Amino acid sequence: MSFAARAIEFSPRLDLIEESLCESMGVDGVYARGETYERVVMALAGLISRHRPERSEMLRFPPVMSRMALERSGYLMSFPNLLGCVSCLHGDEREIRGAVQRFEDGDPWVEALGAADLVLTPAACYPVYPIVAARGPIPGAGLFFDVGCDCFRREPSRDIDRFQSFRMREFVAIGSPDQVMAFREAWKGRASVIASDLGLPHRLEVASDPFFGRGGQIMALSQVEQTLKFELVVPVKSEDSPTACMSFNYHQDHFGEVWKLKDGAGDLVHTACVAFGMDRLAVAMFATHGVDPRAWPTPVRRLLGV
Amino acid sequence: MSFAARAIEFSPRLDLIEESLCESMGVDGVYARGETYERVVMALAGLISRHRPERSEMLRFPPVMSRMALERSGYLMSFPNLLGCVSCLHGDEREIRGAVQRFEDGDPWVEALGAADLVLTPAACYPVYPIVAARGPIPGAGLFFDVGCDCFRREPSRDIDRFQSFRMREFVAIGSPDQVMAFREAWKGRASVIASDLGLPHRLEVASDPFFGRGGQIMALSQVEQTLKFELVVPVKSEDSPTACMSFNYHQDHFGEVWKLKDGAGDLVHTACVAFGMDRLAVAMFATHGVDPRAWPTPVRRLLGV
Repeated sequence: MSFAARAIEFSPRLDLIEESLCESMGVDGVYARGETYERVVMALAGLISRHRPERSEMLRFPPVMSRMALERSGYLMSFPNLLGCVSCLHGDEREIRGAVQRFEDGDPWVEALGAADLVLTPAACYPVYPIVAARGPIPGAGLFFDVGCDCFRREPSRDIDRFQSFRMREFVAIGSPDQVMAFREAWKGRASVIASDLGLPHRLEVASDPFFGRGGQIMALSQVEQTLKFELVVPVKSEDSPTACMSFNYHQDHFGEVWKLKDGAGDLVHTACVAFGMDRLAVAMFATHGVDPRAWPTPVRRLLGV
Repeated sequence: MSFAARAIEFSPRLDLIEESLCESMGVDGVYARGETYERVVMALAGLISRHRPERSEMLRFPPVMSRMALERSGYLMSFPNLLGCVSCLHGDEREIRGAVQRFEDGDPWVEALGAADLVLTPAACYPVYPIVAARGPIPGAGLFFDVGCDCFRREPSRDIDRFQSFRMREFVAIGSPDQVMAFREAWKGRASVIASDLGLPHRLEVASDPFFGRGGQIMALSQVEQTLKFELVVPVKSEDSPTACMSFNYHQDHFGEVWKLKDGAGDLVHTACVAFGMDRLAVAMFATHGVDPRAWPTPVRRLLGV
């Protein structure tokens, strides 16, 4: 299990990232981002845009989405522990004022909160399927999307490669099993070239999602056996626990079934996506090449325009 | 009360914006954004960046921030009805699995949610003050920030100029009363020039924040009397109810007091900010010039590079 023939001193550099690029906001895994960090995230986004699939439609989503849509997608069954719901103070003026009074008195006021019809979007592709469903049958040539979103997963951590709030970019394919598998396989190769161009030591691995609980272990095993998920991992914290910076996912007909996505003949379509963890890629760049982009290898700087 | 010597047919164009630029996500005031819309938002962001105050530090915040920090800022006292909190399923595997079981049984499961230590950020400048506080005394020349954030306010609406989730950019000044007032006054003029350059009919108005409830009316009145808030409004829905697209706010020593922000002599500093509603500006551009940027006036296209 080796990436590149050089020893990277990880920990000091990660401290540097936290000290010079991101700033604590008082909650683990939630960071204010400085100018250098943001410029690299934007440059990576631009690079990925240049690889956007032909005929793809661009959509950008806000950080919240319909709770009902996410429930229907099955998220709650698989990752209930990671979900962030939006809760608000409901009721009339007297009730809301009562909650504020409890806050002023130093009493627990959050019990007055009630769930709204919104959740924090946990992955950039969830909102696209109901939108596609509302448009009617999937054309024979399939559909391709370029989506992006600030995502949230309830995983408080001091690890620099695990944010609670992070940016995800995805290319999504919707069509026949052959179409979406061809899309995913092509992207496994393309992504490896992009990582090489960025000077990132990396490898592709069969992977599984962090399904919840003991029952989830069976789902994860099945996902691995069917090679439904691959990840492109980069040594960020260490070579032994490399960080997934991109993933390549075949959902079979899961979203087709949930949203009744059908082709012209009435058959359920399949979906696949390639996901780019924008913040993880940025952190990987700084961990690999150092915190000052001016000192990065010339081909990498030229590629990114930084 | 007139903006420009021309009658705009508002409603049909707003329908067009919803139909051709943004897409419903099933919840009022939450929209997927298409490519044309996003390009305009990015072009407006670039224009605003070119006006960034000298010596300003750029920070970008995720859409969530510390609940404790927002509570301390006084937000709950003024706008409790607009707050969105992050709630999650807490507890061990058995408890979380129980909530999922209730969902599967079609029973109300959201009662199992509990407030996390995060809220959805309601304005882009809230996170900056605790960060500044942690850095020590404010230098005599003052501090200036360029901040941006996806913001959330619980105001479900079918109005095209009122999103629940929207993007806000702010320039923030922290220093002596004279410094921050000079900053705000200069920006009132500068913003008007920017709006003119964008071809937006507009005017500056004394304004107040939407303080909650009956008690809030007194706070709003006091805010108007002290001219603490101005808004640059543009006719988007109608000329009679124009839309605030930028605001110019003098907080006096409110945030200084809350976060103990002091200068070298130990005196509390004052703060001011100019805020740009990025989505409102974009909607105003489409409402004013039409949904196809290629047909916008040449000087406007040149200014934005669209």
